[in-house]
Amino acid sequence: MGSTSDLPVMEKAAQILNDFKIPFEINALSAHRTPGEVEVFAKNASGRGIKVIIAAAGMAAHLPGVIASMTPLPVIGVPVKASLEGLDSIFSILQMPPGIPVATVGVNAAQNAAILAAQIIGTGNDEIMNEIVSYKQNLKKKIVEANKDLKKVKYQYKTN
Amino acid sequence: MGSTSDLPVMEKAAQILNDFKIPFEINALSAHRTPGEVEVFAKNASGRGIKVIIAAAGMAAHLPGVIASMTPLPVIGVPVKASLEGLDSIFSILQMPPGIPVATVGVNAAQNAAILAAQIIGTGNDEIMNEIVSYKQNLKKKIVEANKDLKKVKYQYKTN
Amino acid sequence: MGSTSDLPVMEKAAQILNDFKIPFEINALSAHRTPGEVEVFAKNASGRGIKVIIAAAGMAAHLPGVIASMTPLPVIGVPVKASLEGLDSIFSILQMPPGIPVATVGVNAAQNAAILAAQIIGTGNDEIMNEIVSYKQNLKKKIVEANKDLKKVKYQYKTN
Amino acid sequence: MGSTSDLPVMEKAAQILNDFKIPFEINALSAHRTPGEVEVFAKNASGRGIKVIIAAAGMAAHLPGVIASMTPLPVIGVPVKASLEGLDSIFSILQMPPGIPVATVGVNAAQNAAILAAQIIGTGNDEIMNEIVSYKQNLKKKIVEANKDLKKVKYQYKTN
Amino acid sequence: MGSTSDLPVMEKAAQILNDFKIPFEINALSAHRTPGEVEVFAKNASGRGIKVIIAAAGMAAHLPGVIASMTPLPVIGVPVKASLEGLDSIFSILQMPPGIPVATVGVNAAQNAAILAAQIIGTGNDEIMNEIVSYKQNLKKKIVEANKDLKKVKYQYKTN
Amino acid sequence: MGSTSDLPVMEKAAQILNDFKIPFEINALSAHRTPGEVEVFAKNASGRGIKVIIAAAGMAAHLPGVIASMTPLPVIGVPVKASLEGLDSIFSILQMPPGIPVATVGVNAAQNAAILAAQIIGTGNDEIMNEIVSYKQNLKKKIVEANKDLKKVKYQYKTN
Amino acid sequence: MGSTSDLPVMEKAAQILNDFKIPFEINALSAHRTPGEVEVFAKNASGRGIKVIIAAAGMAAHLPGVIASMTPLPVIGVPVKASLEGLDSIFSILQMPPGIPVATVGVNAAQNAAILAAQIIGTGNDEIMNEIVSYKQNLKKKIVEANKDLKKVKYQYKTN
Amino acid sequence: MGSTSDLPVMEKAAQILNDFKIPFEINALSAHRTPGEVEVFAKNASGRGIKVIIAAAGMAAHLPGVIASMTPLPVIGVPVKASLEGLDSIFSILQMPPGIPVATVGVNAAQNAAILAAQIIGTGNDEIMNEIVSYKQNLKKKIVEANKDLKKVKYQYKTN
Repeated sequence: MGSTSDLPVMEKAAQILNDFKIPFEINALSAHRTPGEVEVFAKNASGRGIKVIIAAAGMAAHLPGVIASMTPLPVIGVPVKASLEGLDSIFSILQMPPGIPVATVGVNAAQNAAILAAQIIGTGNDEIMNEIVSYKQNLKKKIVEANKDLKKVKYQYKTN
Repeated sequence: MGSTSDLPVMEKAAQILNDFKIPFEINALSAHRTPGEVEVFAKNASGRGIKVIIAAAGMAAHLPGVIASMTPLPVIGVPVKASLEGLDSIFSILQMPPGIPVATVGVNAAQNAAILAAQIIGTGNDEIMNEIVSYKQNLKKKIVEANKDLKKVKYQYKTN
Repeated sequence: MGSTSDLPVMEKAAQILNDFKIPFEINALSAHRTPGEVEVFAKNASGRGIKVIIAAAGMAAHLPGVIASMTPLPVIGVPVKASLEGLDSIFSILQMPPGIPVATVGVNAAQNAAILAAQIIGTGNDEIMNEIVSYKQNLKKKIVEANKDLKKVKYQYKTN
Repeated sequence: MGSTSDLPVMEKAAQILNDFKIPFEINALSAHRTPGEVEVFAKNASGRGIKVIIAAAGMAAHLPGVIASMTPLPVIGVPVKASLEGLDSIFSILQMPPGIPVATVGVNAAQNAAILAAQIIGTGNDEIMNEIVSYKQNLKKKIVEANKDLKKVKYQYKTN
Repeated sequence: MGSTSDLPVMEKAAQILNDFKIPFEINALSAHRTPGEVEVFAKNASGRGIKVIIAAAGMAAHLPGVIASMTPLPVIGVPVKASLEGLDSIFSILQMPPGIPVATVGVNAAQNAAILAAQIIGTGNDEIMNEIVSYKQNLKKKIVEANKDLKKVKYQYKTN
Repeated sequence: MGSTSDLPVMEKAAQILNDFKIPFEINALSAHRTPGEVEVFAKNASGRGIKVIIAAAGMAAHLPGVIASMTPLPVIGVPVKASLEGLDSIFSILQMPPGIPVATVGVNAAQNAAILAAQIIGTGNDEIMNEIVSYKQNLKKKIVEANKDLKKVKYQYKTN
Repeated sequence: MGSTSDLPVMEKAAQILNDFKIPFEINALSAHRTPGEVEVFAKNASGRGIKVIIAAAGMAAHLPGVIASMTPLPVIGVPVKASLEGLDSIFSILQMPPGIPVATVGVNAAQNAAILAAQIIGTGNDEIMNEIVSYKQNLKKKIVEANKDLKKVKYQYKTN
Repeated sequence: MGSTSDLPVMEKAAQILNDFKIPFEINALSAHRTPGEVEVFAKNASGRGIKVIIAAAGMAAHLPGVIASMTPLPVIGVPVKASLEGLDSIFSILQMPPGIPVATVGVNAAQNAAILAAQIIGTGNDEIMNEIVSYKQNLKKKIVEANKDLKKVKYQYKTN
């Protein structure tokens, strides 16, 4: 995260990663206020065995792109909504120049960032891939249940 | 791709994947015109050994999200610019609901989609990870060369 | 609806359809979380005697387009405001590719979706067409009454 | 149409309606320059046996909404791109107040407007409904063919 | 006004017109719900001695343009913010086609609409023109006073 | 005008004013490059018998607002499209603070600015008001003619 | 500031300048309501020994540009968010024509405006440059501390 | 510059700096492709006697912010238009977090960036301040000349 103020948004990512039993660490590292720490983190990440990096930032959100420029690992960017409805964060993370992609998810989409991270790790890890398959089936179950509840609701109007 | 009209944009992805020696296949499958074919493709992808899917589409760009809903594999979305400066494609691909992420890259950013795909595969494949490291060093070399050329240019004005 | 969280927005549609004495059913079906259920629903709708489908969704709102791709029936799309002032939903529903239209109404415009559905059914049903004519006259009456009340208000400043 | 300058955009609608063997008429009627003619047209449309109205306009595009306010028939609005990437037309047509819906299609989407009109008429006309079913199958065929052609293309790179 | 719900926004216009001693009337007339009443109002306005019309509306805000199409009088449009930050109202009022201008003021700018109306009437009425000159001097006085107060505030830091 | 580069856009205003037989003068005066000249012009305009001022400018378009701050006359603002699709000009002219309205017309809408100027002068001048009435009738005639031509066109498909 | 209503936003600038021990004065001067006072201020600023001007304004924010047109000093513009998410202020300040730059900072970024002012003065004042260096080190310290605190948080999940 | 492809846009800055007799150097340094070179450049700039840095970049334009995070010098950012009408570059440069300002100028506004740089240097250098004063007087002369030419133009229509 670019700042600890992003923690309430990013907590969901931690919960998902715990659910998927994927070990992780959380850091507050600012592309602008601690560029040296970002560099140390980004350059060593691959060597330390990290597989994927999730970077969240708001406004002129440079953190994901700056990390992506210093590591061969896939970097997932989470645009945090802090101003301009989050459009500034989206564009600052998404519109990376040729050569340095950031895998961008929706505004404040910490949960999706974690699932995407799991999917990426799952490409080389069958256990985690199975977790994802179960997770998706659960998503489905919830909405199927919701639909059943809906059928009992008063708005229902059938002519016969 | 949602349509063969996206081919001129997506060719660069093919070239990059060839450079990285990553085998791939190209399909034109429309979320709206061939939903059955999309389903067959998406549901079988993981079983056929595919590791990552790149899906490109323009306007109300549903293809990446629809594929993502039918596979546990990571899906990379490329918003193709066809109208509204590409904002419609960006929002249709990026703003996925919780549970079904799409790893979105910039407008028409086929090249970055391919690099991201390589990075994802590289998390479980050291050979490809090494290709990425070399690729990034090449990016750097080009701009360092460009900077040297620039130093000889006429605008230079040094006081002493 | 893509989610039961859209119910508060979509309740108005149910009320209008009741007013027009048009039988209807409500479903929570997600383009991304229950694609199979969406397919079953969409492919059977016409055969079950359904005349029009209203599909509401927010963010990367694929539900209306996905349903439209699987049925010959007219599909009305309601962009639900969940982020980005609803622009993401508008563009994801409105900007459909050639061949698969979605009849889009305004942001959160559940009421208008139901009226439009009635108008569509009314093209082949004189009773419902008459309901619509009465409904429009009521709209007029209310604003004519409001204007009369306004005439008594203090701001009025007439020179004679 | 609000102006004959919209004819190049709207020609496709005429072609589609001819394909579907749906009789139609074309008028240039401006909400702002010929409000009386618009009124005569809109108020008489239902009585003359018209089933659906397609109204196209650009910029501050009032024509679809003004017609919708004067007829119980469903009105399809086509935002024509004339400035601001078409955003002005989209908002002027889509964001109708409660009570007066306009079934809006994408920017310059004359083809989709005609298909939607056919779908609406098809709700009470089996022959036209069958035309739509065939039309959708043709859409699918074209993209399936395109996909076959694509398989022969040079980018293909298969490891074995 | 298109609806009495615009009254809280438009009250300021009434206050300003009272301050300028300009007689006025207020009507709730909807371009979409009472098109006939709008027509009667607009076509008779000039004959009844009205000099300027202020029309306020939100969303797909057609009222100002529709009135402007039916009168030779200058029409001032007030975009009311109801959704999309008011962008839909701005574009629906501002982007009129050639031939039918609407003098648009800012979002919710009822006060400015009334001042503009006074300025327009003032072009043929010296008394009102003098009121405007005084009004502008008052604006200046207020900010000059505010500036004096500011000088006493604690933030002041002078090195002297 | 803020710059002579706006002349191609503003020529239409001159033609309309000539058609309406309204005497006028054209000036290139920049809010930023010749603030003194703007001040002299704006402060003397009313005394010189000028009734309305049309001010055109692009980008951070301050000219209309700056003139409006220095004259009691009505000021019409024309946002010239120079970048950002003209959104920068629209917002810089339209969103004036309380007290200093600018009567804004559409992007590059020089013709409408001139018609609006005529309408404003017409509030105190019957001859010009009559010119406007004729002008509006001509607008109508043109579109009625266009509609007649359209009726002969090949797209027409009538069942009987 | 264009209005004392901008004071809550701009207070932070005063605090920063105090921290940097840079003497300053605060004025409420409106480009539109007190153009004469703005002119006196801007034309005399350089002669009075002022080095940098920070100008804050909202909506059609002309103050920074108007001041910049009347002084050779660098002018820093702060777009104040008052409507349209602040986009109107940004564009009105940022998009200045060639020849008259305004150094624009982010929406409501009073703090950054003051730091930028300090940096500008620091180019000719070593003492202040040293203050800036310390300030930046403090920024870093805070986030490094925050990161340490974060390490103790419950989300941490380490496999060994 | 982030890339030599920005050279056509940035050439004007070089010309202006030459006109002002301000020595300068040009570098192509990419925040993403040569982060190490950017760091070396930014960290040494102040020590090498550089007073101001102009950084131009397009899309997710991180270069100005990244440099600003590594130097106490004022950094001027030029958003280069490469996609999305330049909105992505504007937001990526302008919306910096508290503590690290970038003095942003308009889209592609290389000329204004150079003038701003001169103004900043001019705060501690009377010779350059005088150059700026002359430059502004020249701007004025050009538009005054243009206005004179305009007075001879055919559109002029004076009643007496």
